Amino acid sequence: MSEPLFNKVALIGIGLIGSSLARVIRRENLANTIIVNTRREETLNRARELNLGDDYYSSAAEAVRDADLVIVCVPVGACGQVAAEIAPALKPGAIVTDVGSTKRSVIQQMAPVLPDTIEFVPGHPIAGTEHSGPDAGFAELFRNRWCILTPIGRASDEAVQKLSRFWEACGSRVDTMDPDHHDKVLAIVSHLPHIIAYNIVGTADDLETVTQSEVIKYSASGFRDFTRLAASDPTMWRDICLHNKDAILEMLARFSEDLSALQRAIRWGDGETLFNLFTRTRAIRRSIIDAGQDVAAPDFGRQVVQEKSAAPADAEG
Amino acid sequence: MSEPLFNKVALIGIGLIGSSLARVIRRENLANTIIVNTRREETLNRARELNLGDDYYSSAAEAVRDADLVIVCVPVGACGQVAAEIAPALKPGAIVTDVGSTKRSVIQQMAPVLPDTIEFVPGHPIAGTEHSGPDAGFAELFRNRWCILTPIGRASDEAVQKLSRFWEACGSRVDTMDPDHHDKVLAIVSHLPHIIAYNIVGTADDLETVTQSEVIKYSASGFRDFTRLAASDPTMWRDICLHNKDAILEMLARFSEDLSALQRAIRWGDGETLFNLFTRTRAIRRSIIDAGQDVAAPDFGRQVVQEKSAAPADAEG
Repeated sequence: MSEPLFNKVALIGIGLIGSSLARVIRRENLANTIIVNTRREETLNRARELNLGDDYYSSAAEAVRDADLVIVCVPVGACGQVAAEIAPALKPGAIVTDVGSTKRSVIQQMAPVLPDTIEFVPGHPIAGTEHSGPDAGFAELFRNRWCILTPIGRASDEAVQKLSRFWEACGSRVDTMDPDHHDKVLAIVSHLPHIIAYNIVGTADDLETVTQSEVIKYSASGFRDFTRLAASDPTMWRDICLHNKDAILEMLARFSEDLSALQRAIRWGDGETLFNLFTRTRAIRRSIIDAGQDVAAPDFGRQVVQEKSAAPADAEG
Repeated sequence: MSEPLFNKVALIGIGLIGSSLARVIRRENLANTIIVNTRREETLNRARELNLGDDYYSSAAEAVRDADLVIVCVPVGACGQVAAEIAPALKPGAIVTDVGSTKRSVIQQMAPVLPDTIEFVPGHPIAGTEHSGPDAGFAELFRNRWCILTPIGRASDEAVQKLSRFWEACGSRVDTMDPDHHDKVLAIVSHLPHIIAYNIVGTADDLETVTQSEVIKYSASGFRDFTRLAASDPTMWRDICLHNKDAILEMLARFSEDLSALQRAIRWGDGETLFNLFTRTRAIRRSIIDAGQDVAAPDFGRQVVQEKSAAPADAEG
């Protein structure tokens, strides 16, 4: 059995991402000791019940003491405060990273506070589900997903490489990118989709002419696809909206512009414009499936899942 | 074995819905004879290869001769033409129905053309996938889904009840509704979601600052959920947009209004408004899962599907 990559890893925050990391670190033997930190006593107790770590602290400063790798897994709005708390306690040479969905803001909050003696490598695993909390995590979360690192000259090449190896050992593929470019990319692939999903579910919830019970009953005709994203953690998504404002507003403006054009085509009965748009969007899904970023089964394979849970004895046939 | 509900059923159109009906009619023994009709020779041949029916016709008029139940399964823009073609050949007393996603327009196209001697019951099974064509159908498509009938006084109660029994035998639950109300409900639960999905995928495809390859690589962070709907049949969706214009434009206006408010909250850093919206949308997903209209597994259960296809031998564990 090979030596673990790190002696001691501290997880600051133990929600979906933190608890998935805890599970994969243990399974892949990536650290001798896993330290779990979260401020809420109830969540910390739950992490202990789930046996996610070796030691548990409600103080972030105590949690990072002697850690070789510190992974900040809190909503992006809380990164600055965490950085201030852990800064005096960090071991020189420790790698500090995060998992936040906005990078420029996280860097602005953390970089000025962290000591020069540590290696700061901002990061973002492109993985998640609509569930949250320590129970929601699972070791497979990062498998075949990308993790983007956005180094900013505050870490050695060795530290960046070691962190890359860590994410690869978690099952991910690793890219590096400029933080501002990351924020633009995520605005379109993640932030805009979530905002749109939240918005449409809100619109449906507000209607007077169609009841909520009708929306629910007939949701399999399309609407339900949006409700998954719109069930994501509210605090996390409030913070993302507040911390990637410029890129999100840019993408929202483009989306709205395109939607106005589409609306106009519908109003004026311009079937050709509609047909052309509806045709070229098909190709993108094909590419996503080919790239291994989605399943090819119809309806995301829900039918398979439904049959499996309905009749487990038949699932082997 | 009980007597089939119908002696002869004619399917006009053999795409996803038509071919799913063919399969479930055969499996549940709902007719003695299944007639398949489609205009394209290639599709008709494929239906024959798949053994979907008992007789195959490229002429709709020939296909409906002596049929007790005629189900029109073509894009809603083609319903009027089909009605004109089959009208002279329909057997008196035959039940004629459709599966179109807009009801007012289908009624306006078909009702004036169909003879008074037949029973016309417009219908709409709330079921589908992003795939199309005769290969895409499967007998389970309608199971646990709703089918909405919108009778308009052009059929006897017996005919409506018989058609209800037919859909129930296909696995559906049946509702009846006023056609205009149907069109409003579908505009929000199906048409708006598809249009929004097509639009966002189009927006992403057009960006200069983010490459298409980046959109594809990182799509698991939200974007991919939209690509499924945006891969739906372009002809079908062009027709829906053109044939449910008023209700769609109304829902689009409300969606855009809400999106502007959300955009404003982002611009002005109004975290409370964001948090409140992001919280109430969670409840709707819960209701949809409780109503059996979606799976509870995270990520629509994609992980289960992926593992199943990656390592079938482990799937039994």
